[in-house]
Amino acid sequence: MSKTVVVIYSGGMDSFTLLHRALAEGHRVHALSFDYGQRHVRELEAASAVCGELGLPHKVLDIRSLQAVMAGSALTGGSEVPEGHYEEESMKSTVVPNRNMILLSLATGYAVTVAADAVWFGAHGGDHAIYPDCRPEFVEKMDAVCRVANYEPVAVEAPYIRADKGEILAEGLAMGLDYGQTWTCYNGRHKACGVCGSCVERLEAFASHGMTDPLPYEARN
Amino acid sequence: MSKTVVVIYSGGMDSFTLLHRALAEGHRVHALSFDYGQRHVRELEAASAVCGELGLPHKVLDIRSLQAVMAGSALTGGSEVPEGHYEEESMKSTVVPNRNMILLSLATGYAVTVAADAVWFGAHGGDHAIYPDCRPEFVEKMDAVCRVANYEPVAVEAPYIRADKGEILAEGLAMGLDYGQTWTCYNGRHKACGVCGSCVERLEAFASHGMTDPLPYEARN
Repeated sequence: MSKTVVVIYSGGMDSFTLLHRALAEGHRVHALSFDYGQRHVRELEAASAVCGELGLPHKVLDIRSLQAVMAGSALTGGSEVPEGHYEEESMKSTVVPNRNMILLSLATGYAVTVAADAVWFGAHGGDHAIYPDCRPEFVEKMDAVCRVANYEPVAVEAPYIRADKGEILAEGLAMGLDYGQTWTCYNGRHKACGVCGSCVERLEAFASHGMTDPLPYEARN
Repeated sequence: MSKTVVVIYSGGMDSFTLLHRALAEGHRVHALSFDYGQRHVRELEAASAVCGELGLPHKVLDIRSLQAVMAGSALTGGSEVPEGHYEEESMKSTVVPNRNMILLSLATGYAVTVAADAVWFGAHGGDHAIYPDCRPEFVEKMDAVCRVANYEPVAVEAPYIRADKGEILAEGLAMGLDYGQTWTCYNGRHKACGVCGSCVERLEAFASHGMTDPLPYEARN
């Protein structure tokens, strides 16, 4: 059944696929992005370009002032982004306290404002092991509280919660999506670095499908 | 058992009493206030003065940029604050979409940062009828999700959830608290107006205990 959905859309691969899934299912979509001072502002630029092309309403919410709470993340600070695989220690250094609950609370408030039935976000199975707020249990409990917090219930759904990044990519490729319209790299340079945890994970997803990522990467020595 | 508690402290009567209750129970307290562009900035000034006097750590989190989501509230806009009793219609005009979940999510993130065990907030029985996010069901479900959203569980507690404003005041008076250190009025003038919904509710609480509010009020014609 068609409904109105706020899709939390970072500009990366997973939420790009999610956005298109919502459209493919016939839902009315409001895209919502967060400017939290991320170094990879190109992700937000990619999000805006895609929404403009699709003619979708797109809100970018400035939450940079929340850094006092969001402190401790390599994504916004001056410290080095860990390279290589998303090993447990390097992933923990990118953890923001209560990140997803904060973003989902804001998205739910926005959903009330635009009279949406649900908030969708792109948590996936690959993140379960390390991020408590990407686990099915978190999504279920967040859904439960969002249904009673306002006069109109808002559902919280993570359609890819049991998928991995490769399966999400497979779904997008089957829809004919152009992943050259997405941005993943944590480093905000002209080309993707190819070595940060996020790039490595992305490249592995393409490799697992025998595909070449359409994004340009920096040459390596 | 003594624990570390983040108390959401607006500077008003209820959270002022809550702060002192936490101290009276022997807890380590971190006070947290939100600057959401409220017209009654005197409430925040009252909060800072009290924390300074008590020697408590006090964080004021600037969330003014969230107005895009928090839209629709008479508390931040230019529209008239409704006078008189908190009747259903006038209270609804002060509803901010998903307000308490947003504030509690931020407070829970802050609790993780300062290694607190719990977040306390001053929701009370007088608000149940009209605000969904002041009801026991909301608090229970918010507590459930906050316990699983981070590596360390954070409890969400509303000790006055079954009390009314008069009972909270009675507890504070029994503790010998000086309510001249609090601020309630929605209008940010030098003296309290005495006629906004918030003032009326406050004055009724004092009257119900045969007490005179120590705050100065504007003379009425």
